[in-house]
Amino acid sequence: MFSKEHWIEKILEGHVPTAARFITLLENRDQKARAILAELFLHSGRAWVVGVTGSPGAGKSVLSCRIAQRLHKRGLKVGVIAVDPSSAFSGGAILGDRVRWEKSGLDSDVFIRSMATRGRLGGLSASTRDAVTVMDAMGRDVVLIETVGVGQNEIDVLEIAHTTILVLTPGQGDEVQAVKSGVMEIGDIFVINKADQPGADKSAREIRHALSLSGRQRDWMPEVFLTVATTGQGADELMEGLFAHQKYLCQNSLMGANKFNERLLVSIATDLMKEAIGGPAIQNLLADLVCTVREKKADPYAAARCLMDACIKADENGR
Amino acid sequence: MFSKEHWIEKILEGHVPTAARFITLLENRDQKARAILAELFLHSGRAWVVGVTGSPGAGKSVLSCRIAQRLHKRGLKVGVIAVDPSSAFSGGAILGDRVRWEKSGLDSDVFIRSMATRGRLGGLSASTRDAVTVMDAMGRDVVLIETVGVGQNEIDVLEIAHTTILVLTPGQGDEVQAVKSGVMEIGDIFVINKADQPGADKSAREIRHALSLSGRQRDWMPEVFLTVATTGQGADELMEGLFAHQKYLCQNSLMGANKFNERLLVSIATDLMKEAIGGPAIQNLLADLVCTVREKKADPYAAARCLMDACIKADENGR
Repeated sequence: MFSKEHWIEKILEGHVPTAARFITLLENRDQKARAILAELFLHSGRAWVVGVTGSPGAGKSVLSCRIAQRLHKRGLKVGVIAVDPSSAFSGGAILGDRVRWEKSGLDSDVFIRSMATRGRLGGLSASTRDAVTVMDAMGRDVVLIETVGVGQNEIDVLEIAHTTILVLTPGQGDEVQAVKSGVMEIGDIFVINKADQPGADKSAREIRHALSLSGRQRDWMPEVFLTVATTGQGADELMEGLFAHQKYLCQNSLMGANKFNERLLVSIATDLMKEAIGGPAIQNLLADLVCTVREKKADPYAAARCLMDACIKADENGR
Repeated sequence: MFSKEHWIEKILEGHVPTAARFITLLENRDQKARAILAELFLHSGRAWVVGVTGSPGAGKSVLSCRIAQRLHKRGLKVGVIAVDPSSAFSGGAILGDRVRWEKSGLDSDVFIRSMATRGRLGGLSASTRDAVTVMDAMGRDVVLIETVGVGQNEIDVLEIAHTTILVLTPGQGDEVQAVKSGVMEIGDIFVINKADQPGADKSAREIRHALSLSGRQRDWMPEVFLTVATTGQGADELMEGLFAHQKYLCQNSLMGANKFNERLLVSIATDLMKEAIGGPAIQNLLADLVCTVREKKADPYAAARCLMDACIKADENGR
């Protein structure tokens, strides 16, 4: 095991294998690694974090790959975090993304990390946040987060993104679903991918219409781009749109650490509690408390308070 | 203001206006009401809690109304909780449900309560749980929860249901979406409503097929029913299915307080924390902590721990 100083030095130097190992330690909730992370945080805050999200099958991976290639060509150092979410119900994960990335011909200057946390309470957003901090501290100019699907977990993941690209496809009803469910409001940039399929223009019009009605931020009006990620069509226009949003962020002091806000802090606190709950000591307590409530020896709120107290103590001991 | 004893006596008697006022106090997080709730909890655990969920427009309200009518005809005392969720993004609510209920011709023996909590952190599931406890304590045999849409909030709400009915419609692609997103696993009973529209049989077959592959609970294999809620078609068969699930629950000791489990306790604890965060003292602290992190005077985890500590203290003082 390296010394604390050695870890920090290698990561700040941008050494990929060290950073990769370190992210694994963080995923495993290694306490020493977390103390190091607190220091790395002080060296972070430079990276532009871009989230790419949308339904399974929308072509996010290929599109993210195109974006990474183009950022790289412009001389930017890129980090990619591919989030494999697990269903809250089945624990299953969408496979294949990792493979596609490896075949993409990107050289090692693009640091790709697949997050494999499955079913762990609070794990996905916590691990992703930590990985972004590491990539930021190691000097990546842009960190792309590719996240599959649009559930609460994904929305939590996207809280750390400065720019969010929502990827849709024509004629799948995704657009209407997105409008309905309020998902519209998480996208800074909209992409209709697979735009060589019928209905792309119609979908774009619908989204523009929905955006015009939605009372979105007055400062930034999201644009809609048509792409065919597999051929690269539309990617140049999308890049212009992406840099336009970056410019907007810079002009409004919304980059770097200024992204940190109340909502994000609450997420982190919630994740800490969930993590404490995942530990063996708390698991035993939890089972005991459930019995107490079932037997009507305590009410659920009293039991919940007891649980919270124990979580704080567990977290303090774990520091 | 009534005395504590008076509240408890009237609610245990089943007095609807008192219970309705009391639920409003709970929604407003009245501390005295919460102390009373802890006592009411000791008198609860008899009700059968049935959740009705599905996409907007699937006809849940009309179907819930049919179910309530039929339960009432069998001599059961029914309570209905209509959850109007607010989008996590827009704060908008689906309107109209309340009106349809009032026109439904149900007499006052069906106690209907619309939950109007909007945008409040942890509010929806907490308020719904509290309302179920009150209806249970006041002697309702069945409590129906109608919840719109299928997001994390809704899933949290359904944690307290003994039986969950998932309402779908033919030919809207809902089925496929549901299968994909793992929503299948929350339904104990599936309904294809609007079964007079084309594609109902096909949808039912698809769902049965998905269920047969899903490795669902070995003990209870969900059934799929076809209904036309507006005419009442299929409602009798659905009721048989509903009572079959109740029988299954009784035979396996899954009714009443036995529904209380680890997952639910964690939800309650999480809600308590979110609620503490919503208070003014914590809001000020939150803003300060965010500044501290932005200025790199603390790392996000240290700030989160500080927040958790303060939440526990706020909750303790509020008791």
